Amino acid sequence: MTVAAYVRANARRFVRELAEFVAFPSVSASPAARPHLAACARWLVRHLRRLGARDARMVPTAGQPVVVGRIGDDPQHPTVLVYGHYDVQPAEPVAAGHAPPFAPHVRGDYLYGRGASDAKGQLFAHLKAVEVACALTGRLPVNVVFLVEGEEEIGSPHLGDVLARLAAYLTGDVAVVSDTAVLGLDRPSITYALRGDLFLDVEVSGRFPDLHSGNFGGSVENALRVLVGALARLHDPSGAVAVPGFAADVASTLPRERRFMHAVGPSEREVRAEAGGAPLAGDRAFSAYERATIRPSIELAGVVGGYPGAGVRGVIPARATAKLDVRLVPHQDPDRVHRLIFDHLAGGIPCGLELRTRERARARPVVLDRRHPTVRAAARAYRRGFGVDPVFVRTGGSIPIVSTLADRLGIPTVLMGYALPDDRAHGPNERYSLAMLGKAIATSAAFLEEIAR
Amino acid sequence: MTVAAYVRANARRFVRELAEFVAFPSVSASPAARPHLAACARWLVRHLRRLGARDARMVPTAGQPVVVGRIGDDPQHPTVLVYGHYDVQPAEPVAAGHAPPFAPHVRGDYLYGRGASDAKGQLFAHLKAVEVACALTGRLPVNVVFLVEGEEEIGSPHLGDVLARLAAYLTGDVAVVSDTAVLGLDRPSITYALRGDLFLDVEVSGRFPDLHSGNFGGSVENALRVLVGALARLHDPSGAVAVPGFAADVASTLPRERRFMHAVGPSEREVRAEAGGAPLAGDRAFSAYERATIRPSIELAGVVGGYPGAGVRGVIPARATAKLDVRLVPHQDPDRVHRLIFDHLAGGIPCGLELRTRERARARPVVLDRRHPTVRAAARAYRRGFGVDPVFVRTGGSIPIVSTLADRLGIPTVLMGYALPDDRAHGPNERYSLAMLGKAIATSAAFLEEIAR
Repeated sequence: MTVAAYVRANARRFVRELAEFVAFPSVSASPAARPHLAACARWLVRHLRRLGARDARMVPTAGQPVVVGRIGDDPQHPTVLVYGHYDVQPAEPVAAGHAPPFAPHVRGDYLYGRGASDAKGQLFAHLKAVEVACALTGRLPVNVVFLVEGEEEIGSPHLGDVLARLAAYLTGDVAVVSDTAVLGLDRPSITYALRGDLFLDVEVSGRFPDLHSGNFGGSVENALRVLVGALARLHDPSGAVAVPGFAADVASTLPRERRFMHAVGPSEREVRAEAGGAPLAGDRAFSAYERATIRPSIELAGVVGGYPGAGVRGVIPARATAKLDVRLVPHQDPDRVHRLIFDHLAGGIPCGLELRTRERARARPVVLDRRHPTVRAAARAYRRGFGVDPVFVRTGGSIPIVSTLADRLGIPTVLMGYALPDDRAHGPNERYSLAMLGKAIATSAAFLEEIAR
Repeated sequence: MTVAAYVRANARRFVRELAEFVAFPSVSASPAARPHLAACARWLVRHLRRLGARDARMVPTAGQPVVVGRIGDDPQHPTVLVYGHYDVQPAEPVAAGHAPPFAPHVRGDYLYGRGASDAKGQLFAHLKAVEVACALTGRLPVNVVFLVEGEEEIGSPHLGDVLARLAAYLTGDVAVVSDTAVLGLDRPSITYALRGDLFLDVEVSGRFPDLHSGNFGGSVENALRVLVGALARLHDPSGAVAVPGFAADVASTLPRERRFMHAVGPSEREVRAEAGGAPLAGDRAFSAYERATIRPSIELAGVVGGYPGAGVRGVIPARATAKLDVRLVPHQDPDRVHRLIFDHLAGGIPCGLELRTRERARARPVVLDRRHPTVRAAARAYRRGFGVDPVFVRTGGSIPIVSTLADRLGIPTVLMGYALPDDRAHGPNERYSLAMLGKAIATSAAFLEEIAR
């Protein structure tokens, strides 16, 4: 029996199991979701035990628990560390016409639900690859250690501690991280570069109460107006970052590398299509693909100020806040970037109002060697799973675990992404392609063999 | 027995009754508060009946009910129409250290609670003035008609209909509107000018989903960034409005009037003190008092976009909204002002994003004749209630009912404000001075006599 035949024979059960996994509203950003995260972690432990990881367990942290489990303990075999996360992005706002985020359901070739693609479906492919490999051959050709955290979407604040505590357990010759997208169902790709990130909260506030905009409108400072004025200075009209010195330390990219990216990466039209038709913006000295990968960026990810409700309210806010999502590339220093942004914002804050910024999360950028033996094994696995050779691409996203694994455990990572660009990760109506699930299981099973060669 | 003695003798009951009135969370902006508004209206009807308004009743509208009631029906007597509103501003956000908005309580000389000053306390003074006048003299020297609406804070969308339907009932020689502040407890004042207002919702949106800021950060448009950029163009760095033509139609104010304002109005330091220490801002060619009264303004009263919750979320918003509170003076045309603002905002909206604005409420500016006989009667009443002559001041706020009463019913209005500048109307910890309540009752009772002369 082939892997594909096994997957076909068990397709209904696989979809049912994945739907169970996606149904947990495991939103790490929401304190109220804590019990759901615990329930989701328990589900994972049970699932790992059924796959043969008899020691599978929840590791408590100061935040959400980490799930670990090991299958196989043969010192002759290489060990693959599979990293995943069971937490998901918040689902709000759920507007009319949106799929209910935590009542997963199949429509067409897709399973809809928050986290179906980012990253429950991708982790699930590894779980099923282990099942398939065991079922077809009796035993795995490698040892597999699972490491699944519940705080990836909020910057993995407690993962470093767990890695330090479990360093003896979390061994491996290679780590597999599946939290990236391929170019398309028939265009497998391996991500070899990630941007870093730096999340900043920004606040403008004054030591005075909110005021009545009738009585005082036009005569006093308005913290929301001042914040908006400061934020507007972060970009020029094209959408390019306008903070002096922001890109000064960016490592220049070799012309050969840019030619390679141009040859294999998405075109302007493809980026726009992946973005659901969003108009392109930013520094036109670089392609959209380059702007989102080898160039740093600042996105305004949230503003809150004044009266947010329905109807009218005449108020002059004394306090307003914003969220900045800064993506970094080598060799930018996050502290220096934070300072540059603060200084630029502070330039226009009038006397009597205060600007404060606060770092909420950070991750280092990563560039992997495309010729490393584990990356070559991954490329062969994709060829077997998809029937075509993968291309090597960069992504603009950040996966802090990659640098953490290298720094803390000394394990090199290969990014075996199983998402599709139009899965709508982080947006409404997130979904996961069932055709992709089949190919992902086959690729993951093939990788376990390829790495064992 | 004097009015003051009666008020002293009944002070505890008066405070208890006012606390009952303030305890209703009658937030007209909140659809969920509908039952509370109805309960508050029923309380008012009962109170009016006890005062002798046997016909007091709730008049249903498509929104919140209007309460009406008449005391006295002597054709020899002049009729005073007392306008008030029982709805209040939203109380959010209720932060630590803030007084619970709907659990009114006395601290020092103040009753704390949302709406205590704006405008339940002020209406309550008229109710108690009627009680006092009846108790001390046996009958009122005038007929009094009460008209109390429940939608003032959302722009009185249904009041015009009620006035048209009840035109035969809502007669009067003069209307008294108490929704303004005096300069201080020992500095009574009569407001003779109001600004108009125009509330606009602004939206920037694209026909694409929210996007992952890792994957796309730096490469596509961000509706929140674009909205913020547009809003930032509304003002110059001093806080003065920068919309071309915005003030072009503003009636020039006579030097004599500006000298009068300078002589009686608040100084820069006093405006700042009233504003709880907020730094002054805006066009320095005018004083703070002038900027808030004879000059138009645009205040940014709210922005919502991106992820508002705790923690981090990497999102590029496809939609963001803002609320603009525009205050108008004679002879600005609201439609023209709306168009100028739209055109100015639209100037920088990139292709693929759409700007929409929507009018939510409007009111005309008002300038009253300081030498009108009813205004003179009000001035005499203040002198009796406070022991000193009132001064004549302008306010920057808007009271749509004033022009509505003139247009629909042909009744001139006198603005007999009973609030204090530091009552924190529309802000947290709103309060009403009990010393002011006593003076307000005495002034209102005196007015009923003065108007009957």
